[in-house]
Amino acid sequence: MSMNNVFGDLFSVMTFGESHGPSLGAVIDGCPSGVNFDISLLEKDLRQRRPGQSEVVSGRNEPDSPQVLSGVFEGKTLGTPIAIIVNNKDQRSEDYNEIKKSPRPGHADDVWLSKYLHTDYRGGGRSSGRETVSRVMAGSVAKMMVKQLYPDISVLSFCSQVGELKLSQKEVESIVDKATPSDIYNSLVRIPIKDKSKQVEELLLKAKAQGQSYGGLAQVIIKNPPSNLGEPVFNKIKAVLAQAYLSIGATNGVDLGQGFDAVKAEGTEFHSGEASNYGGIRGGITTGETLQMRVSFKPTSSVLDVAKKGRHDPCIVPRAISVLEAMTWLVLADFTLKDRLSRCTGT
Amino acid sequence: MSMNNVFGDLFSVMTFGESHGPSLGAVIDGCPSGVNFDISLLEKDLRQRRPGQSEVVSGRNEPDSPQVLSGVFEGKTLGTPIAIIVNNKDQRSEDYNEIKKSPRPGHADDVWLSKYLHTDYRGGGRSSGRETVSRVMAGSVAKMMVKQLYPDISVLSFCSQVGELKLSQKEVESIVDKATPSDIYNSLVRIPIKDKSKQVEELLLKAKAQGQSYGGLAQVIIKNPPSNLGEPVFNKIKAVLAQAYLSIGATNGVDLGQGFDAVKAEGTEFHSGEASNYGGIRGGITTGETLQMRVSFKPTSSVLDVAKKGRHDPCIVPRAISVLEAMTWLVLADFTLKDRLSRCTGT
Amino acid sequence: MSMNNVFGDLFSVMTFGESHGPSLGAVIDGCPSGVNFDISLLEKDLRQRRPGQSEVVSGRNEPDSPQVLSGVFEGKTLGTPIAIIVNNKDQRSEDYNEIKKSPRPGHADDVWLSKYLHTDYRGGGRSSGRETVSRVMAGSVAKMMVKQLYPDISVLSFCSQVGELKLSQKEVESIVDKATPSDIYNSLVRIPIKDKSKQVEELLLKAKAQGQSYGGLAQVIIKNPPSNLGEPVFNKIKAVLAQAYLSIGATNGVDLGQGFDAVKAEGTEFHSGEASNYGGIRGGITTGETLQMRVSFKPTSSVLDVAKKGRHDPCIVPRAISVLEAMTWLVLADFTLKDRLSRCTGT
Amino acid sequence: MSMNNVFGDLFSVMTFGESHGPSLGAVIDGCPSGVNFDISLLEKDLRQRRPGQSEVVSGRNEPDSPQVLSGVFEGKTLGTPIAIIVNNKDQRSEDYNEIKKSPRPGHADDVWLSKYLHTDYRGGGRSSGRETVSRVMAGSVAKMMVKQLYPDISVLSFCSQVGELKLSQKEVESIVDKATPSDIYNSLVRIPIKDKSKQVEELLLKAKAQGQSYGGLAQVIIKNPPSNLGEPVFNKIKAVLAQAYLSIGATNGVDLGQGFDAVKAEGTEFHSGEASNYGGIRGGITTGETLQMRVSFKPTSSVLDVAKKGRHDPCIVPRAISVLEAMTWLVLADFTLKDRLSRCTGT
Repeated sequence: MSMNNVFGDLFSVMTFGESHGPSLGAVIDGCPSGVNFDISLLEKDLRQRRPGQSEVVSGRNEPDSPQVLSGVFEGKTLGTPIAIIVNNKDQRSEDYNEIKKSPRPGHADDVWLSKYLHTDYRGGGRSSGRETVSRVMAGSVAKMMVKQLYPDISVLSFCSQVGELKLSQKEVESIVDKATPSDIYNSLVRIPIKDKSKQVEELLLKAKAQGQSYGGLAQVIIKNPPSNLGEPVFNKIKAVLAQAYLSIGATNGVDLGQGFDAVKAEGTEFHSGEASNYGGIRGGITTGETLQMRVSFKPTSSVLDVAKKGRHDPCIVPRAISVLEAMTWLVLADFTLKDRLSRCTGT
Repeated sequence: MSMNNVFGDLFSVMTFGESHGPSLGAVIDGCPSGVNFDISLLEKDLRQRRPGQSEVVSGRNEPDSPQVLSGVFEGKTLGTPIAIIVNNKDQRSEDYNEIKKSPRPGHADDVWLSKYLHTDYRGGGRSSGRETVSRVMAGSVAKMMVKQLYPDISVLSFCSQVGELKLSQKEVESIVDKATPSDIYNSLVRIPIKDKSKQVEELLLKAKAQGQSYGGLAQVIIKNPPSNLGEPVFNKIKAVLAQAYLSIGATNGVDLGQGFDAVKAEGTEFHSGEASNYGGIRGGITTGETLQMRVSFKPTSSVLDVAKKGRHDPCIVPRAISVLEAMTWLVLADFTLKDRLSRCTGT
Repeated sequence: MSMNNVFGDLFSVMTFGESHGPSLGAVIDGCPSGVNFDISLLEKDLRQRRPGQSEVVSGRNEPDSPQVLSGVFEGKTLGTPIAIIVNNKDQRSEDYNEIKKSPRPGHADDVWLSKYLHTDYRGGGRSSGRETVSRVMAGSVAKMMVKQLYPDISVLSFCSQVGELKLSQKEVESIVDKATPSDIYNSLVRIPIKDKSKQVEELLLKAKAQGQSYGGLAQVIIKNPPSNLGEPVFNKIKAVLAQAYLSIGATNGVDLGQGFDAVKAEGTEFHSGEASNYGGIRGGITTGETLQMRVSFKPTSSVLDVAKKGRHDPCIVPRAISVLEAMTWLVLADFTLKDRLSRCTGT
Repeated sequence: MSMNNVFGDLFSVMTFGESHGPSLGAVIDGCPSGVNFDISLLEKDLRQRRPGQSEVVSGRNEPDSPQVLSGVFEGKTLGTPIAIIVNNKDQRSEDYNEIKKSPRPGHADDVWLSKYLHTDYRGGGRSSGRETVSRVMAGSVAKMMVKQLYPDISVLSFCSQVGELKLSQKEVESIVDKATPSDIYNSLVRIPIKDKSKQVEELLLKAKAQGQSYGGLAQVIIKNPPSNLGEPVFNKIKAVLAQAYLSIGATNGVDLGQGFDAVKAEGTEFHSGEASNYGGIRGGITTGETLQMRVSFKPTSSVLDVAKKGRHDPCIVPRAISVLEAMTWLVLADFTLKDRLSRCTGT
């Protein structure tokens, strides 16, 4: 559809809200009736997105208490639009006149001004990372629906590299096999391997002090997906996941399975049977095997923002993990509904 | 939208056609009136997509003569849907009963059957690469519109790696600076540097003889784009280009600007000013600078298809180049129309 | 969606073709796999749409043989887009230069020229009634799917008034109760009551000779619909049926149940229990009872077209009947798929 | 699109909210930047929708103070989604257990339960007339945009019949010529002719006392529209206006121009030149002439609701007027944006 602030065709979420406006919100149209609505899950997901838990990540201190305005009654969804908002409280008294006069380097301030001629220059308006609150709220509802239908499915996202520091292939595999979401969110940098987590924390604290920032890599794993998700041709599930992930700020690459590493592979070896080579997808459709994707992030540009030095995020990946997870659930929810339409069997 | 065979919201193309059915086609809804329609450009674009020009790529020998069924009158578009078809002629007498009984490994045959319960098993049906004929036809019309509005814009796509053989950074830069589409399409493997082209051709001929296949890398460059293309939040131009490219079969990764290489970059260096670091996009919107993207492809799976051995494509990238170009034009056309709606200035 | 030539959200049809261009066509995206495809039904529906069967209606003598280009294999739909075209053959040698210079009064020629600046002036281009060929083809496929799921459902459309000549309430009721589609299509004027049919035929023959034309009324009845069709708020089934019918040329009104006659009704009487008062719809959703709608048509404007005098249609309703039926099936097909998404029960 | 709670393709509004839930709201996606946002107009439009102004109409006593949550900054729209909510306050302590056990006759309670299996039975949930608050808020923003682009355009809606009491053709014409929106909203029953207004008020007071209700007729007039609005084939402006109006509860008919009265007209007379015969539309596109539509409403079913007797609305038309107006502005806003895409002239 041409609506720019809508994601998903059947399980559709429209998001709204400026960084320093009154509220941020998400309205979900297309969630069927009868989904058990778990407000504590929603609150937990929002907490896990929250910056400000540590010195490692910067950010505002917002309680982010979600208010469900519609679509839920007596603990279940009604099949009507589900609107959820959080109000902005901590609107720091930054010198916005500065920003107004000189757009921040590396940010979207000037391209927005070129496009819209009138912008909310306070803290990036809608180009701020704060926009992702809406995605996490919607993703939480998507998760409720998908897990009600497919109880075994799970989505794991974690950080596998910051700057030169990276997990070994073996460490990644062990996370895929054994880590739980709690393992991941218990790490400030979303790396569920203790010593690596510690090393990255130290790197980032130093970077923060020195006015440095790093790029990084996130992994997303979908375990026990149903088969048949994805629509051939333009809406292959890999294509839509890529759109979902690259719609997040600071991302600049995505691959699946062996991805860019498969470029130099020889076909006879590549196709010799390990599922992970394909990343759980064939012909754009899930096979029921585990899906594996990687998303790359560029170094945060706030390093250039003199006004923010010392308060900037030295690497965006730890904050992006819960957003990647949310976008994954939104894609899964949409394709779950789409697959209901594929076959003419019964009504 | 939920239509699975439509790409683009405002400049929308619906494609149809099975590999061994009567015809393949594209219907474009949303092309404005008054675009000069250049049938010879369309024919040329189809020729450049065509496999079968050499021993290096396999494929059917189809004339692919486009028939324009509607939407064009006296050399100009009418603002009504533009339907274009090509008829299938060369429907090789492969032993389809074989395929019917045993889906080809690595292909989508079995996942389609799982999803749809009834499939056209002859040559992959709609999961065949032949489907891209429709994309190239639609991309050609998109190019006509975009170039009429922005005469300086150009799109270059070329192959920069096959297996271990790759262009140096310097060679890539020289192509970005100086190569023309003709330079690219004059190379059978779509590498506009003579000796590298020769080496890759030899590699692929050998692979073909030996039943081997390789992955590869394609680059897409957009020169002189207008600024303001891309819609913030979910429809950032990087996100939609990624969807466009990963909707092509055998792709498994996309990045832009420094992409995956920026993971290990330090922020102070990364943001020191070279446009190519950002890939011509900020905040999801074009800045007017050159856009650079890379797309990775896995080794072709037809290497596993015993029936096809000796006739298989040893690397898909050469055949994918014109499809990547077409998808790029479709994205540009759609965002060109979308940007008309951004500002309330005049009617 | 913003696509102007698409009808339906899930069972979506994109139509194309100019009156005097090479072909007219419909591409259906969203028809599930496994629908038994009945080509003879499609051909029959096209015959029933065809003008030229008699002196009463004008029109070209086109065979309208449908060609199915994709989406059907071994007698069943594949779940891929179904493209169907008919080629134009009889392109009468009217003096198009006349029309080019002076747009026909009452036609859309001049408003199209104002909007698009460039038009196909031959026979109205896409504003011609010939465009409805595409609707009938798509409606035929919709009917195949809906009847496979709900074998008892039927759609009846017939003419109930031409000028001052109208059926009595009792005659309408008897048709609703007992008439079959064959009864209707056996009447040249689509009135399945012999003497009334005869009277209207005579009226129209006289009108044709005298250069006169009449408005008229059509009825559409849906018998044995499933309940639960229709989506509350903006996509109430009454709203979407109204859009469907008023998208047909020359229509200028639609009502359902008692419709305009209920304006003067008293509530205590109106709500005293006869289903037909509601027209089978409550809250925008089907109740399982019979739906009844009426559509009004203005007198044909071709009466003003000096060039056509003696060859004009003296009343459009007889030709519109099969188009109303087709649009009804399209709405039913779309809502049938939509209702699959309402409840979260099972996968 | 398949989203059921969205109206409009380019100027799109998603609405949410149950009658007795926390809030009702509208989010507009697609309003361009730079529209002067007039909060006092929004408040005024909401006041004009409000029931409870008199004995003639029933309803809750809600202040309906709109809160703009996003999309507006320093008095102008940003081009980002505009979210507006009103909170529900007056949630009457009706005996909902009664409703839960026995769905109200003539209402949508039972059809919703059939479709969704789980409903908010308090006051109709989302099938309540209270849902129209969202429409009026969105329509108000649409009006701001359209009037900024076309300052001369105006929309008038008024009541022209209640039960047997109706305005003469001459009275209707005089309203079309001379009445202002204030004239209309100053009448409790939205009839800007003093004695007729008085007579209808008396009729309705009596009906209320006697437990009676009436159907009625509303008129909608668009004066000084731009030409070129409307998209041929499926999105003719008449078709989309019909959908818009019939998406309002209790409506059961719509016509335009002479509408149902033209059925018996002879063509030579009908086409003799008076614009109003066509209702300002030709080929589905505005000609720049005045548009005239009529919408019929059935008698309110709350007359059957024993619990509400004495508090019911004896006729819905007076309350529907501002909703018809809002829907008209939404259609105009959407087509205004669509027409920007019709022609390829400049960028």
